[in-house]
Amino acid sequence: MENAMHPAPVVASEAPPRAKPTSPPFPPEMVAKVAPGRDKRPLGDLFGLTNFGVNLTRLAPGGQSALRHAHGKQDEFVYILEGEATLVTDAGETILKPGMCAGFKAGTGDAHHLVNYTNKDAVFLEVGDRSAGDSVSYPDDDVVAVFGSDGKFKFSRKDGTLY
Amino acid sequence: MENAMHPAPVVASEAPPRAKPTSPPFPPEMVAKVAPGRDKRPLGDLFGLTNFGVNLTRLAPGGQSALRHAHGKQDEFVYILEGEATLVTDAGETILKPGMCAGFKAGTGDAHHLVNYTNKDAVFLEVGDRSAGDSVSYPDDDVVAVFGSDGKFKFSRKDGTLY
Repeated sequence: MENAMHPAPVVASEAPPRAKPTSPPFPPEMVAKVAPGRDKRPLGDLFGLTNFGVNLTRLAPGGQSALRHAHGKQDEFVYILEGEATLVTDAGETILKPGMCAGFKAGTGDAHHLVNYTNKDAVFLEVGDRSAGDSVSYPDDDVVAVFGSDGKFKFSRKDGTLY
Repeated sequence: MENAMHPAPVVASEAPPRAKPTSPPFPPEMVAKVAPGRDKRPLGDLFGLTNFGVNLTRLAPGGQSALRHAHGKQDEFVYILEGEATLVTDAGETILKPGMCAGFKAGTGDAHHLVNYTNKDAVFLEVGDRSAGDSVSYPDDDVVAVFGSDGKFKFSRKDGTLY
């Protein structure tokens, strides 16, 4: 069906992979840490959505969704479709199976990510809004995201030196 | 796992159903049209998310997700988990099967809803943000949503008389 106003529905797993391995652009050593074994297919963008993003994310064994991180303004939500993913937060680890979901309210300071510790792929949907003025903290890694004067994220080490 | 900052993950299908049949509150004749055969379980709310909502929605045969509607400010997205749902927009009908998704950019004026024309339940995730100043139009039904002076939606007929 052609529909100029609402682009036609798609099979999510056939959506194009994200062009850049990380968003926002990370220091290369951090990209090297998170990019392997991770396949993200932006779905909301296909329909011109701007208020939130939805990714179909597949983690190969050993893959992780992101560096463990906490958002200042942007809420996040995940729903597991296939396989098992381990959610890691400040409180510890929880195994998420298909049909399970979790949400991460912005501003709590509690950082999270999903890691695939199994020998099969894990597939999930991740949703995050695009509230302005977001900040991101990474408790386990030597990286700090700071807004540059151009309004874009820049990355420094925790001693303040820029990457 | 107890986690005071991030409430523990849940099995989505075990989340409590929405307390009220429609949101915002509809005229009773419109509730009677959409409520039967529809089960919505708010998921994002369980985790305190406020920037967007996520529902796990189950439509029995003959059920519909909502009156066919278009949002002025709020983007929406659906992902089919089980069964088949027919998406209806101004351009016509499209059958959505598990693993398919569709998105609805706010402000296009093209209205949408999902209807279950099959003899099995259809289950999907629906995501919508909560951008302020939203408006909603219903091309197929004699209802208009208008902001009241209290900032809440009120409903009139298309001739302007309030329900």
